[in-house]
Amino acid sequence: MKIGIVGGTGDIGEGMALRLSPIFDLVVGSREKEKAVATCQMCTSTLKTRGHECSITGVSNQEAVDNADVVILAIPFKHVVPTLETLHGFEDKIVISPVNPMEKREFFTFVPPPEGSAALMVKRLLPPEVKICSAFNTIAANRWKALDEELSYSVPVCGDDDGAKQEVMAIVNRISQLKAFNAGPLAVSSMVESLTPLVLNIARYNKMKDVGIQFR
Amino acid sequence: MKIGIVGGTGDIGEGMALRLSPIFDLVVGSREKEKAVATCQMCTSTLKTRGHECSITGVSNQEAVDNADVVILAIPFKHVVPTLETLHGFEDKIVISPVNPMEKREFFTFVPPPEGSAALMVKRLLPPEVKICSAFNTIAANRWKALDEELSYSVPVCGDDDGAKQEVMAIVNRISQLKAFNAGPLAVSSMVESLTPLVLNIARYNKMKDVGIQFR
Repeated sequence: MKIGIVGGTGDIGEGMALRLSPIFDLVVGSREKEKAVATCQMCTSTLKTRGHECSITGVSNQEAVDNADVVILAIPFKHVVPTLETLHGFEDKIVISPVNPMEKREFFTFVPPPEGSAALMVKRLLPPEVKICSAFNTIAANRWKALDEELSYSVPVCGDDDGAKQEVMAIVNRISQLKAFNAGPLAVSSMVESLTPLVLNIARYNKMKDVGIQFR
Repeated sequence: MKIGIVGGTGDIGEGMALRLSPIFDLVVGSREKEKAVATCQMCTSTLKTRGHECSITGVSNQEAVDNADVVILAIPFKHVVPTLETLHGFEDKIVISPVNPMEKREFFTFVPPPEGSAALMVKRLLPPEVKICSAFNTIAANRWKALDEELSYSVPVCGDDDGAKQEVMAIVNRISQLKAFNAGPLAVSSMVESLTPLVLNIARYNKMKDVGIQFR
């Protein structure tokens, strides 16, 4: 199984590439292919110094879709519409949305689109047969990148296709110490996406860094 | 400091009474005073067999407000409006809302009132000088009542009055192993209240019981 990261040269995308490329066949996409190639070189050499082999190729965002079975949209909420407008070929893919629609005003706040959540907006933008799951919403970029630390977090996964959700949960469970939880249908993604501004506020008001969540 | 529980004979209220009465001076209110007296007798005898002294008095909901410095609204969302309509005298109190506006359809879903959250609705219903905090939203009734187990959970606390929020956080931190986190102003209570339908779905879809949350 091949995983593609759209927006793989952003902060979250880079961190994901570091964690995922030693485990999965990874294609890292970017609007500018050269950036994706540079990110892959950085990943390969970072992982090599740690003694890890990795399988990772830098490509355009479109090639990241074309060459993957599972596509992760590692893009900020405001880039979702313009990015998806330039891409096609999602029909037989599983798409993972880790996107959180939020704004930083005086504090972080959840500002969902009219659909109710980023995941439901992605569903509206893509062909109806695409299997969409929300996952990885609450894991901070810095934690993805801190390879010396295990990721000891719970990852709620929402989706309407049971088989796709099981595949996504299996992916989650292979990464560090992440633990996937079935959080229900895509319709409840808003409750998952609003966790991120919540933990950002908790980090801020309690002088903590990169707060994550565990269910127990 | 005296704590009053409005709705202290409900499932959550009873559990809170069991956990709080060995630590704080507690007045437990109910629409029917006799029910509150019965709950207090149950608490006292349950705690006595465990070797705990407790300070707990069964009263009417109005007396629970009158005799307390901090009032916990341990009532379901649908009872908030009718209950608060019958009560007065909140002016100099700190009021804690653990209320979650949610519905169980095919799955649990967050259904906030027009104000955006139960806490903001409580704010609209009470005099402007009342200091309102949201807290204790995600702790299941069964966990409150399971006295053999520590409550090892994180408790996000929202509120606009810093002093009141500090007092509420201090109360939280004295109960079992609960750990209070400043989650920001009352305006972000919706992000805390929507945690509860999320963890109820997670419990349901993952065959778990009484799921709680830890920030880390």
